[in-house]
Amino acid sequence: MLPLQGDVTQVADAVSAVWVLTVSFLIFFMQPGFALLEAGQVRAKNAGNVVMKNMTDWSMGVIVFFLAGAGISTIAAALTASGTSLDIAGAFAYIDEPSGWVSWLFGAVFAMTAATIVSGAVAERMKFSAYVVYAVAMTAVIYPVIAGFAWGGGLLSADGFLGAAIGVGYKDFAGATVVHALGGIAGLTAAYVVGPRRGRYDSKGKAQPIPGHSVLFAVIGTLILAFGWYGFNVGTQGVLSDGQFMGEALGRVALNTTLAMGAGMLASSLVSYYIEGKPDPLFAANGLLAGLVAITGACAHVTWWGGILIGLIGGAQTPLVYRWVVDNLKIDDVCGVFAVHGSAGFIGTMLIPFFDVAGFSTAQLVMQVAGSVVIAGWTVLTTLVVMYALKYTIGVRVSDEEEELGLDLGEHGLATYPEFTADSGSSPITDGGDVRTDGGDVRTDGGEDE
Amino acid sequence: MLPLQGDVTQVADAVSAVWVLTVSFLIFFMQPGFALLEAGQVRAKNAGNVVMKNMTDWSMGVIVFFLAGAGISTIAAALTASGTSLDIAGAFAYIDEPSGWVSWLFGAVFAMTAATIVSGAVAERMKFSAYVVYAVAMTAVIYPVIAGFAWGGGLLSADGFLGAAIGVGYKDFAGATVVHALGGIAGLTAAYVVGPRRGRYDSKGKAQPIPGHSVLFAVIGTLILAFGWYGFNVGTQGVLSDGQFMGEALGRVALNTTLAMGAGMLASSLVSYYIEGKPDPLFAANGLLAGLVAITGACAHVTWWGGILIGLIGGAQTPLVYRWVVDNLKIDDVCGVFAVHGSAGFIGTMLIPFFDVAGFSTAQLVMQVAGSVVIAGWTVLTTLVVMYALKYTIGVRVSDEEEELGLDLGEHGLATYPEFTADSGSSPITDGGDVRTDGGDVRTDGGEDE
Amino acid sequence: MLPLQGDVTQVADAVSAVWVLTVSFLIFFMQPGFALLEAGQVRAKNAGNVVMKNMTDWSMGVIVFFLAGAGISTIAAALTASGTSLDIAGAFAYIDEPSGWVSWLFGAVFAMTAATIVSGAVAERMKFSAYVVYAVAMTAVIYPVIAGFAWGGGLLSADGFLGAAIGVGYKDFAGATVVHALGGIAGLTAAYVVGPRRGRYDSKGKAQPIPGHSVLFAVIGTLILAFGWYGFNVGTQGVLSDGQFMGEALGRVALNTTLAMGAGMLASSLVSYYIEGKPDPLFAANGLLAGLVAITGACAHVTWWGGILIGLIGGAQTPLVYRWVVDNLKIDDVCGVFAVHGSAGFIGTMLIPFFDVAGFSTAQLVMQVAGSVVIAGWTVLTTLVVMYALKYTIGVRVSDEEEELGLDLGEHGLATYPEFTADSGSSPITDGGDVRTDGGDVRTDGGEDE
Repeated sequence: MLPLQGDVTQVADAVSAVWVLTVSFLIFFMQPGFALLEAGQVRAKNAGNVVMKNMTDWSMGVIVFFLAGAGISTIAAALTASGTSLDIAGAFAYIDEPSGWVSWLFGAVFAMTAATIVSGAVAERMKFSAYVVYAVAMTAVIYPVIAGFAWGGGLLSADGFLGAAIGVGYKDFAGATVVHALGGIAGLTAAYVVGPRRGRYDSKGKAQPIPGHSVLFAVIGTLILAFGWYGFNVGTQGVLSDGQFMGEALGRVALNTTLAMGAGMLASSLVSYYIEGKPDPLFAANGLLAGLVAITGACAHVTWWGGILIGLIGGAQTPLVYRWVVDNLKIDDVCGVFAVHGSAGFIGTMLIPFFDVAGFSTAQLVMQVAGSVVIAGWTVLTTLVVMYALKYTIGVRVSDEEEELGLDLGEHGLATYPEFTADSGSSPITDGGDVRTDGGDVRTDGGEDE
Repeated sequence: MLPLQGDVTQVADAVSAVWVLTVSFLIFFMQPGFALLEAGQVRAKNAGNVVMKNMTDWSMGVIVFFLAGAGISTIAAALTASGTSLDIAGAFAYIDEPSGWVSWLFGAVFAMTAATIVSGAVAERMKFSAYVVYAVAMTAVIYPVIAGFAWGGGLLSADGFLGAAIGVGYKDFAGATVVHALGGIAGLTAAYVVGPRRGRYDSKGKAQPIPGHSVLFAVIGTLILAFGWYGFNVGTQGVLSDGQFMGEALGRVALNTTLAMGAGMLASSLVSYYIEGKPDPLFAANGLLAGLVAITGACAHVTWWGGILIGLIGGAQTPLVYRWVVDNLKIDDVCGVFAVHGSAGFIGTMLIPFFDVAGFSTAQLVMQVAGSVVIAGWTVLTTLVVMYALKYTIGVRVSDEEEELGLDLGEHGLATYPEFTADSGSSPITDGGDVRTDGGDVRTDGGEDE
Repeated sequence: MLPLQGDVTQVADAVSAVWVLTVSFLIFFMQPGFALLEAGQVRAKNAGNVVMKNMTDWSMGVIVFFLAGAGISTIAAALTASGTSLDIAGAFAYIDEPSGWVSWLFGAVFAMTAATIVSGAVAERMKFSAYVVYAVAMTAVIYPVIAGFAWGGGLLSADGFLGAAIGVGYKDFAGATVVHALGGIAGLTAAYVVGPRRGRYDSKGKAQPIPGHSVLFAVIGTLILAFGWYGFNVGTQGVLSDGQFMGEALGRVALNTTLAMGAGMLASSLVSYYIEGKPDPLFAANGLLAGLVAITGACAHVTWWGGILIGLIGGAQTPLVYRWVVDNLKIDDVCGVFAVHGSAGFIGTMLIPFFDVAGFSTAQLVMQVAGSVVIAGWTVLTTLVVMYALKYTIGVRVSDEEEELGLDLGEHGLATYPEFTADSGSSPITDGGDVRTDGGDVRTDGGEDE
């Protein structure tokens, strides 16, 4: 029989591993949540392309993040903080250290969440091949650098150059900005470069609605995401720290996450009710998500009433920012990912000092703003570089003909719902399961699925 | 290093917290299960309204249950048991005690399950605003009082006035009656007050079928619910009690839950086969759920063969009670929530003494009947009060025109599936994602979606 | 207070139980994953039948596996290994031992996974009653015998007759062959006996595409399966072994599972792109699954780059083997279950010795081939016996008329989507929720849903 102390430590490690693995699985499960949410918000003729993009950014992303991203994150941290020295071999040592692979998975599911957000912004017209290249850049460099800055002891941490200058580290508990706002503003930037969908703006530049094909799917995707989000937020809080049970910390994160999502849904519904005259289920769903985004960085830090307020603000700004993006910026952010993940994440994280159980701190507020600026700036800059490089090489956009036909037929040679949509029955290419040798030629009759 | 004994206790607390949090997340995940189950059983023109109601009762409910419901539950218990004194401040002390917030979440997901069941009964014609008010009453008072009576040491517990009088406490392990039958009979009562859907009964009072728009969605919702139910039932059993591992108790709950859901599905299929000549997937799904409901109170108490029998009975009664409600009571319970959650829950809970591993006890049987009567009586009474108050103030029902048009367009100004249903393409309002300034006026052409 | 050592052991048992229960729930959740995956790959007129089969094999299966299967597994092991004596009463002792019921559930969810795979191969024409009988055989005998051979200390284990002869036990960590390839080759065999769907081959024997009704549903089902698969693979690794935390082993399984699913998706997409000219989302999804299948047996044994290679091979072979089955074997395996679960499982498991962290071993390679042959041989043989017995008694196939009309109407008397498909509105039988007394007669107008 082992010495007692050894036993306890082993069991404690096992508890922590059960927790980390379980929540990692939940965070992975956000992938079908995003897939349904986004697919429901696009037209039926593009639903297959959306989920193909989602599957690809996950599949490509985990391999890229294992071989490159996780190590680059460590390097980015080392280069931007004092007291650390650059050790490239050490940064990639995890590749051959099985004891670190559970932690790697936990990091990977966060990275893939950031990556997959972008697909919702550029849906219905971005070229598949260009999207794949962008997803590689996202999981290899764009996200890992910010994760290293904020969580890896880099630039934004207390020891980082910026953190040390301001005198306090950046607070973003589970990634409201590091993951969500990064994904949201990347999506906004990419959607700007790709340009609006055909017909999104009329000849006078006025936005024309292009409804998605299933509000139900969008709502179910939302609730799947909320389920995974419990893993995302609560799972970021360890259950044991130095042998002590973290019950109060877990309770705070769980409570704030729950209250903020409720408040976000209610606020967004009320604002949509005020503007439209009726409460809109799609804004309700997106408001629920925005409440979750807004509280993601704050949940471990703020009071319960702060959690409700942050959720309310995150939800209430969703319809307003969405309209501002579409009507003023004239950016066709299809699934509203900037309003839901971007602005909600930045606002919620900058609000932390006002509701912090540790009390208000001006330095912290300065750091929250500075950190948000760094994250936004880096993401916009790198996204512009990658997207313009793609635009002037392989191109970022499908042809007009392909866009009208739908990306499912154009990019993938199939109809997602061969029996449900009006003209799909007449499609020459309706085999979802068989190899076709005709290359899935684009129809030239300009078939319109709506 | 900490003293050994301290370490073990901390780790034990961590294990329990990992369990409670994980199962709480699973129980939350019943929300999209209910949403899909109910949406699949209504017509496409009302699917968005159903899920809007589901999102709202969750979102509103968690805030109401945090600020009011959980405390009212404690008060209800204190007022109905001897040896406890009323302490209103103490009853609400959890609001500022982070150490209790994990437990609060575990309680909240049960409360929201009860609330969301009702939406399935009143679907396709209940006014959204009235539903929201009812959901507040449910999560603030109706459910909390019963939870306090049965689980909080109140009326039905061994120390409660009724429990003490009969000499034994009420047995309902995970809420077959406290949660499900309460929701089921509340739904029945609310559906009675709201009245049947247009066209549900012909001029001679004979029920006319109104098929839902997707059996597939209903089945997937069912299986999602079953997944969450493992959290609901097995998660109600703690993994450690006074430092002892509860392996046998966990095994019993897990086994009985599994066998009863299987038995319920088979029994309901066989009864539908006997009556209809063919096994009906929708009754199969609802029978699986009824088997789960029936075993929810009993799973910790009964033998494995008792579990199978309770599941069989729960499933077999589903088609029969459903027809009785529709044909004899003439109540239009759209998703059959009384048969699935109501009668199955009461029957399963009253059957506990016959299969109890502790042996048969007449006092227990008396208590099971008495407890069921209290729960049913309280729920019917309070639901009637709230629903009639709503009926004679803001009204509980949409206009005939709106009902025919569909509540998605009428209440929310959108089409859930603008591309899939025959006339939805001609709808003047098809923007799921944009703010509309026309107030989403109801069409006057009486468009019929079926 | 208990003695310290006792406490630690109890807490350790609790941790293991939390893990086993959580992953068992995840593995159960593969059921709706299969249901959506398969439903999406069949025509709308057969979607209800597919999910009815899935619900039934689960529901029937758990009862059969409790009353018979688990015990038969133990007997099969005892009969095929030295040093064990046949003890029939002992083999069934678990039925009355609550301490073993958590483990039973863990075993049951694997058994039901094997069973449900078959339904995808025989979809759209196999008779419901015959399917139910086959599912009973699968969960009572076919799967349990193999589980006993490989995991219960039977034929293929180090102490089994074959294992002892070769000098090493069969390696299949979480069931790439024991569960998946068994299900996949059973499906292939059953599909062979049932024969192809009407119209699947033209008069010259050339395969004609019959697209499923929703690529989106198939993809969402795939991602649900991947979520459950984390339970399947990672959950097979215990968190504590002899009081020691198994962190490295957990990390290896989690990493390999993640990398192989990504690699499988990418490889299958690339192959489909090479053949079809466009990357196919349905092959992408099935490739992701094939990557998971291929790594399921290997994940605990192989290096990370071995994991990537096994995933790549599993994915790449999917479109090729699928075409070979359809075009060369002329077997109409509707959902491609042999390519995804069968060949991927056998190949991945036979590749283990080449990437084993324990180093290459010829004996191991021989054992991997021998074990695969035993599993394939047993499964094909028993499936042929049961299927031919059914064919010459109750029949295995619906009538041509019923097949054309769709099995939903023919077998179950309902339309899954009464509002979405072209002619379903004119169906005389469209009530999904009501008892019908007309026996749901088959229409004779030959209504065609496509």
